[in-house]
Amino acid sequence: MTAIHDLTRALQRNNTSKIVLFVADGLGGLPMAPGGKSELETAETPNLDALARRGSLGLSIPVLPGITPGSGPGHLGLFGYDPLEYQIGRGVLEALGIDFELGPDDVAIRGNFCTVDDDGRITDRRAGRIASDIGTRLCQKLDRIEIPEVEVFVRPVKEYRLVIVFRASGLGGNVNDTDPQKTGVTPHEPLGSDEDSQKTAEICKQFLSRAAEILRNEVPANLLTMRGIAKQPDIPTYREVYGLKAAAIAVYPMYRGLARLVGMDVLDAGATLDDQMNRLQAVWDDYDFFFVHFKYTDSTGEDGDFDAKVARIQDVDAVMPHITALNPDVLIVTGDHSTPSKMCSHSWHPVPVLLTADTCRYDNCESFGEAHCHRGGLGQFDAKYLMLLALAHAGRLEKFGA
Amino acid sequence: MTAIHDLTRALQRNNTSKIVLFVADGLGGLPMAPGGKSELETAETPNLDALARRGSLGLSIPVLPGITPGSGPGHLGLFGYDPLEYQIGRGVLEALGIDFELGPDDVAIRGNFCTVDDDGRITDRRAGRIASDIGTRLCQKLDRIEIPEVEVFVRPVKEYRLVIVFRASGLGGNVNDTDPQKTGVTPHEPLGSDEDSQKTAEICKQFLSRAAEILRNEVPANLLTMRGIAKQPDIPTYREVYGLKAAAIAVYPMYRGLARLVGMDVLDAGATLDDQMNRLQAVWDDYDFFFVHFKYTDSTGEDGDFDAKVARIQDVDAVMPHITALNPDVLIVTGDHSTPSKMCSHSWHPVPVLLTADTCRYDNCESFGEAHCHRGGLGQFDAKYLMLLALAHAGRLEKFGA
Repeated sequence: MTAIHDLTRALQRNNTSKIVLFVADGLGGLPMAPGGKSELETAETPNLDALARRGSLGLSIPVLPGITPGSGPGHLGLFGYDPLEYQIGRGVLEALGIDFELGPDDVAIRGNFCTVDDDGRITDRRAGRIASDIGTRLCQKLDRIEIPEVEVFVRPVKEYRLVIVFRASGLGGNVNDTDPQKTGVTPHEPLGSDEDSQKTAEICKQFLSRAAEILRNEVPANLLTMRGIAKQPDIPTYREVYGLKAAAIAVYPMYRGLARLVGMDVLDAGATLDDQMNRLQAVWDDYDFFFVHFKYTDSTGEDGDFDAKVARIQDVDAVMPHITALNPDVLIVTGDHSTPSKMCSHSWHPVPVLLTADTCRYDNCESFGEAHCHRGGLGQFDAKYLMLLALAHAGRLEKFGA
Repeated sequence: MTAIHDLTRALQRNNTSKIVLFVADGLGGLPMAPGGKSELETAETPNLDALARRGSLGLSIPVLPGITPGSGPGHLGLFGYDPLEYQIGRGVLEALGIDFELGPDDVAIRGNFCTVDDDGRITDRRAGRIASDIGTRLCQKLDRIEIPEVEVFVRPVKEYRLVIVFRASGLGGNVNDTDPQKTGVTPHEPLGSDEDSQKTAEICKQFLSRAAEILRNEVPANLLTMRGIAKQPDIPTYREVYGLKAAAIAVYPMYRGLARLVGMDVLDAGATLDDQMNRLQAVWDDYDFFFVHFKYTDSTGEDGDFDAKVARIQDVDAVMPHITALNPDVLIVTGDHSTPSKMCSHSWHPVPVLLTADTCRYDNCESFGEAHCHRGGLGQFDAKYLMLLALAHAGRLEKFGA
């Protein structure tokens, strides 16, 4: 969204306001049966309901109607970056997911340990789903591979999954997967589709050749394949496009990585919501914008556990007084997408949004839930516009034109 | 909307789901007096109301707010093709309207028989609105015109209107109208605005010269003019962009032609809704997607006959049990535009949409009508996104990004 950020760059106004974006991952839901209530509507949420009464509600569309986002596009949208414009390769997302601090020149690759026969044909694409400690040991061996003029990082993810990062200037990110997605064949050769990516492909070949020697006698993980070879998108920072000094208080690595991608300071906190709230309070004077991420509304939805998701929403409700005690100028509570327990997965359904600020237009909504959000004052809008609303309510945008 | 189809191509997921798109042409309406009910709200529609209670309602904007679409853009939008990107020339639409099977290389032209004086100046642009049987006889004569390396087809439409098709490779579609839109002047010379279209213009000249000889002694239709010289847009198929095997069950030629344009199989059925329902049932196992078109909600609206339109809407309601008995995964009932009886014409008003599926977010709407649609859960959205919603609710789209 060049247009959005052209506007925010041109209209930035600095002040001392504070904005809190609380993301309850996968917040939106569905009733289990026609006419029933969603998870959010079922939960007892007195604090959120009080906020709803003095704020504005709405529904956000993460990407386009009907399009279900992954966590990457879901969060980029909330952060004000058009998820169709800024696409994050799988290798990059995997690196973010293990808290690897990617640099702008890095090429990140998702690796899978696999098993090949004597002719080099893949017999198991996941090497029998080896235990994580075996994967870790193999990664430590591969991490020692040296390639001239390239820094090589090899890190375990889980079981047969690993991340490989090549750090060198002038590398491209447009290289095909070597994983052929089936057994009985040899892995594909890595090929770059432009000059810079051909350099990357050459490095991949050298790495794979050295890896084959190192893994030759391992059973069953005697080779690896590569997928999602990518550089991080060239994404402008919060500081530059919004003039905001932003902090992320997130527990899960992927969300920490996504925040880092847009230039937020990623702060450490304990694993509980209370820990996150303590951290928020401790750094309150140091930042303009706070992204707080809570994972368990999504994971309970993915488990299809309606009651557990309801309970996690109530956990979110319970910490709201910690935030309102800090008296933020703008407080937004929303999700990056819906994760209906009924579907056990992310979905495309528009996402509940609650925004409170002194400049809200009151919409007579009584509680925070999908039905109220549907008739809320913010209407139904593209998630990428949420940051414009946040900045506006924080008094951080000048008038456009005279 | 390249982006829409880039997404659907990348995210296609095949399954055995069935989608029905029932288009009641010109469905949307207006009350005849302030505070009254529209045609759809006046009609007794127990079956549609039952669907509304378990589905989601909304309003679609065919092109842009305030823009009244013809049938071509109206349907392309419903089919998921941005009507501003894919424009259909009048000659093509006229050919589709007589069930002429256009090929990708064909240039289609709308012809008007006219009357010219001895100096070649037009005295009547419609040749006294000659009877259709005269037009047909003249077309048969013109159909015998031979032009080297070009197949020529001349077909009557109605009264003074005809269709001319030139079939040859390498012809362009950018040629001006020869109809000067006024009397007392000679027709314009056809001129092509690019090299391929200059070839077309030359063929037009040869055809017009031969036609002048053939028609010389006819009264009053002693010449013809040409309008809307066009090739069909290069439009990707349903199969390619959505992975859907699609069937059209439509009676009127133009809608059959529009369906053929996007790669649907156009099935024959009798002329009544019951015939169409029988056909739907007969081919239920053979397709993934079914476009059913009903014309008379539009034609009664164009006649300004409010009561007749109400009756035709009740006809639509009456066949809903035939469709629901087939248990489609997604059933959409909507129109391609509004045709308020009060206006006796197509209009720009957003169009009622009813969508039922197991994954609907319930919106507490009690019946299918403009007012309920306005507060329905689908909100107000661009018609071009309807197919994304259909695919999503059918489980036919993978997640976007990780």
